[in-house]
Amino acid sequence: MIALPASLQKLIRDLSRLPSIGEKTATRLAYHLVHSEPALAKMLAESLTKAANSARLCEQCFFLTDNPRCAVCSSVTRDETVVCVVEKPFDLVAIERVGEFRGTYHILHGVWAPLRGMGPESMKVLELVERVKLGKIKEVILATSSTVEGDATALYVSRLVCELGAKATRLAQGMPKGGELEYADEVTLSRALAGRSPLSG
Amino acid sequence: MIALPASLQKLIRDLSRLPSIGEKTATRLAYHLVHSEPALAKMLAESLTKAANSARLCEQCFFLTDNPRCAVCSSVTRDETVVCVVEKPFDLVAIERVGEFRGTYHILHGVWAPLRGMGPESMKVLELVERVKLGKIKEVILATSSTVEGDATALYVSRLVCELGAKATRLAQGMPKGGELEYADEVTLSRALAGRSPLSG
Repeated sequence: MIALPASLQKLIRDLSRLPSIGEKTATRLAYHLVHSEPALAKMLAESLTKAANSARLCEQCFFLTDNPRCAVCSSVTRDETVVCVVEKPFDLVAIERVGEFRGTYHILHGVWAPLRGMGPESMKVLELVERVKLGKIKEVILATSSTVEGDATALYVSRLVCELGAKATRLAQGMPKGGELEYADEVTLSRALAGRSPLSG
Repeated sequence: MIALPASLQKLIRDLSRLPSIGEKTATRLAYHLVHSEPALAKMLAESLTKAANSARLCEQCFFLTDNPRCAVCSSVTRDETVVCVVEKPFDLVAIERVGEFRGTYHILHGVWAPLRGMGPESMKVLELVERVKLGKIKEVILATSSTVEGDATALYVSRLVCELGAKATRLAQGMPKGGELEYADEVTLSRALAGRSPLSG
């Protein structure tokens, strides 16, 4: 069997190591890069090297940054008494997009998932405890995902935080905007019912 | 709104310029590369640069290669009187995988698609005509896709080739292996009927 040139084979192998990219997609991407847009290939190589070399984690909240402290932690207008705990850096971006939260963040970079062999040591929870111990933080908002693992993580973190005298809160759970009752799952409906609020009228 | 670090934003922008990769996937890939596998990021950057610099098109058949001529064209065991015409380099790989074809190839790097503004000049068809003119080639197998554009391309190329005295053939069209009659489309069924062959029994 005639094989592809070695340089292309290597590129396909490396591309297919990326999450959600299989061999077929990697092959299509490699062909596109090498044949149609070699300029993009070189630009991408440069961005990759630059990002891998310069991006690091904020020393306080563990968000991604090019500096020792991220843009939120180094801002003087943010409320340091409220910390919003999320799983991944892009959860922070999602919350920032809303534009309403004025506190700071803490990125766990993981969840508590014993079934997948991920215990408390696989997330940056001790660092959060240290931050709370400093005494400034009054409220910790648990904004982990509404999954079994996210709920377990929220519960686990909230216990640690409460022991230190801070208040722990959880994002509201219920029907999403635009969600049709007919298609809502049982857990969502049950939580929406339990968390119902009075309508002024 | 707090933004991601500049190096990461640039990486996401570059990644989302790849075909079939949107902003969300690009963001996920960038996070994975920067946070979880910076070593892979650097390796990928290297492979990209290497492939973009060294991979080029074979001067005879336009397959991808690191050398002036590809592995097929530089092999002495291939039958140069038969040329298999395909749309993309990976169509060649697909045929080579079968392991039965011993002739050479010609990669068009395009199809005849007037509705998308792609005429004969958008594919390497003149180069094929030049090859046929040399007089060695006896049969040209049109192995373009079984789509409207692939069929039109095959028809167009076959006319040019026949004028030069070579024989033009087309891949058989019919039911794919494992295909259920119930789910076959009308065109496939019609072609399978038209191309029926006698069963010895």
